[in-house]
Amino acid sequence: MTTAQPMASTPPSGSVDAALLDLLAQIVGADNLSTSAAVREQHGRDESYHPSSPPDAVVYCTETEQVADVVKACAARGVPIIPFGTGTSLEGHVAALNGGVCIDLSRMDKILAVNAEDMDVTVQAGVRRKALNDYLRDTGLFFPIDPGADASLGGMTATRASGTNAVRYGTMRENVLNLTVVMADGRIIRTARRARKSSAGYDLTRLFVGSEGTLGVITEVTLRLYGIPEAVLAAVCPFPDLESAVNTVILTIQSGIPVARIELLDEAQMDAVNKYSKLDYAVKPTLFFEFHGSDAGVREQVENVKAIAADFGADDFQWATKPEDRNKLWQARHDAYYAAIALRPGCRGIATDVCVPISRLAECILETRKDIDASGLCAPIVGHVGDGNFHIVFVVDPDNADEMKRAEDVNEHMVMRAIALDGTCTGEHGVGYGKIDFLTAEHGEALVAMRAVKQALDPQNIMNPGKIIRV
Amino acid sequence: MTTAQPMASTPPSGSVDAALLDLLAQIVGADNLSTSAAVREQHGRDESYHPSSPPDAVVYCTETEQVADVVKACAARGVPIIPFGTGTSLEGHVAALNGGVCIDLSRMDKILAVNAEDMDVTVQAGVRRKALNDYLRDTGLFFPIDPGADASLGGMTATRASGTNAVRYGTMRENVLNLTVVMADGRIIRTARRARKSSAGYDLTRLFVGSEGTLGVITEVTLRLYGIPEAVLAAVCPFPDLESAVNTVILTIQSGIPVARIELLDEAQMDAVNKYSKLDYAVKPTLFFEFHGSDAGVREQVENVKAIAADFGADDFQWATKPEDRNKLWQARHDAYYAAIALRPGCRGIATDVCVPISRLAECILETRKDIDASGLCAPIVGHVGDGNFHIVFVVDPDNADEMKRAEDVNEHMVMRAIALDGTCTGEHGVGYGKIDFLTAEHGEALVAMRAVKQALDPQNIMNPGKIIRV
Repeated sequence: MTTAQPMASTPPSGSVDAALLDLLAQIVGADNLSTSAAVREQHGRDESYHPSSPPDAVVYCTETEQVADVVKACAARGVPIIPFGTGTSLEGHVAALNGGVCIDLSRMDKILAVNAEDMDVTVQAGVRRKALNDYLRDTGLFFPIDPGADASLGGMTATRASGTNAVRYGTMRENVLNLTVVMADGRIIRTARRARKSSAGYDLTRLFVGSEGTLGVITEVTLRLYGIPEAVLAAVCPFPDLESAVNTVILTIQSGIPVARIELLDEAQMDAVNKYSKLDYAVKPTLFFEFHGSDAGVREQVENVKAIAADFGADDFQWATKPEDRNKLWQARHDAYYAAIALRPGCRGIATDVCVPISRLAECILETRKDIDASGLCAPIVGHVGDGNFHIVFVVDPDNADEMKRAEDVNEHMVMRAIALDGTCTGEHGVGYGKIDFLTAEHGEALVAMRAVKQALDPQNIMNPGKIIRV
Repeated sequence: MTTAQPMASTPPSGSVDAALLDLLAQIVGADNLSTSAAVREQHGRDESYHPSSPPDAVVYCTETEQVADVVKACAARGVPIIPFGTGTSLEGHVAALNGGVCIDLSRMDKILAVNAEDMDVTVQAGVRRKALNDYLRDTGLFFPIDPGADASLGGMTATRASGTNAVRYGTMRENVLNLTVVMADGRIIRTARRARKSSAGYDLTRLFVGSEGTLGVITEVTLRLYGIPEAVLAAVCPFPDLESAVNTVILTIQSGIPVARIELLDEAQMDAVNKYSKLDYAVKPTLFFEFHGSDAGVREQVENVKAIAADFGADDFQWATKPEDRNKLWQARHDAYYAAIALRPGCRGIATDVCVPISRLAECILETRKDIDASGLCAPIVGHVGDGNFHIVFVVDPDNADEMKRAEDVNEHMVMRAIALDGTCTGEHGVGYGKIDFLTAEHGEALVAMRAVKQALDPQNIMNPGKIIRV
């Protein structure tokens, strides 16, 4: 939103001159360096409403050592470095606010080692999640984290992504075993070993998960894998009202039922999904479920959830067992953002992202729905409600200042409400520069510790400057 | 082991003089300050073989603000601060290597808030895990992490403890939602909110989990809770040899069976347990199991595990369903350390703690068993083998230099073997000063990043100096 002005109090001073470009071409090869306006423009923006801030140059790396050499070249000149995966972030994470060199990691797409016995895999940062799961299929294993977009695993790590499966499998925080990282001085480190647990010093792995390129460039990731469940069952169920749907979620979680997915779409969002995906779901607040387990285990989960939903007046479950039916159902859910935007051709989507303790979820969603209704905005709600996380997508005309202002007001109210309810301004999208001002409201004095860590690991402020924290 | 010499390259320079003692007495009250030799001696050592390094004074705090005032007073004079919980650590974590003030947190024993609907609880750092679970009993919730000792939750957080339940519920890393921490300058911060997930900046929570008091003093902890399972079943089963037992564990984990506990005791350890706890288990490599779930779910897990064990020649399961029988069984397991030491009256135990990827577990344990046999030492093996984590307890005469040297050699071999197998020198005990030299072998260049973080957050090196990392 416009609350966040792109700014870094101490912008890095170096500039990308001919000598640096020559050096970069030597490192990556002239074919893997671009200064064309189109390439720079594309690398300066993500999928959000934030405008493009193009870098001065884009380099495509294929190996960690190349990344290290690029970082050393930039560090020697005080030139900013912005890592780029697939550009699917939502808070301006890739914007080159102070210019500099964008390191495109998409060609680091090698799967380096599958350790099926240990249920882990090591990949280069540019491998995308769908490609990984395609590759794994024959092993009987899968990687569950699914943020919707077919993002790179390095990018998902850098933004601490989660998505629909997190309620059961956790987020990137819980599923990264170790990382290879190029530090701000070009040093290559590995943050941990491949053991499942360790008490050997500071948790550098978790420090880099969610650091958004501001502490170093993640080049390799070792991830936990899971056995593909014996049985998978998906379902859609409409509810009489938003409150009944939310309360069904709360009781399901509190009952300890290990649902794999439990997603809420409100009436406005279901209307959008029907239109966009040519479906005919009831236009009511609706929950999308997925159950994983043994045949008997899934049956038990389903019976328990059906009983809870029935208590809240919902019994019209539509089931999907075949993979193609499940894929169709979840594709409709994943297209929710595009479906929302399609409601008003020519408009843009502004995705918001608060997360609260689940006991406060009904209050937070219902109060927010009231604000939206009062604002007159088009703003469907979707959410990973099993985690207490939900999104409003404001579908707005960016040229309509009044509309933008109203969206900003509703968002700010919602964020401050979430924080007051002991929640967070971002459950999974990250900070980028779009949420940078809310961090103060959320963390207070803890920002001092974050800033100290940033300055210790990146004393020149060249690693994705202006994101997460101002120094 | 003697590989680690207590040392800090830049020891803090301040000393505890009369003026500081006066000030501390004003902050905590004269009754809550002690300089008696007995109290200092007791606070300078943990349960390990490491000798006591007494602090100059011990203060007992009851509130975060008191801790902050004590830290400010010490920081102004460059005096070291060592937090103390229950003194059950195993690598000299509480040794006052450079003197200073020990902050005893055991009187910070208030349970501050149980949020049953959100399945979380906030406690002061001195609350012990058994007291917490007693308090929670009526809520139907429990906190699963169980390192054996009745440790304080602040201490468990600071050492990233885990133990027998970690294979299912994770370690302290996965189960802390947020912390209140007093930083090295006396500033009080809260590391996160109470939402289940967040992408709002650097993961300070995980940075402090496992930081062993070297970055700040943890004064309050918010923890995840779990529903007490509908059904709990425990079992003990002997195996024909160590390899069969380890392979049963490996296949159980790889099959995705959600066992709550799966613990290995070798022949020597079973003999010790029988003698110490007056039991008559078969003196064979033995697995201790616990299953949590619904009635049907537990039955399914049991059938699957029995089938795997049978394939490895084991079918003599002894079951325990009643809480008192289960408690007896797990008490025997928890007493393993004391049982081992009792094998040689007058001797001390040196507990080791490596953790490897599970595919390398059989190799690591069997090779280590060979080394032990060749060394002629008394050294039973126990392990949280579901995580790839195991311990040797060397039962040695500390006055016998030759015996100490042999134990040191076997340990060093084992640690270097674990690291070569992509494992860690400490799965759950932490570094303290006992493992400080192994960290270089394990982390290499990553130590530079750890050191930078330490220096950023504790520029005077007053927070538990000489532990984890030398600065």
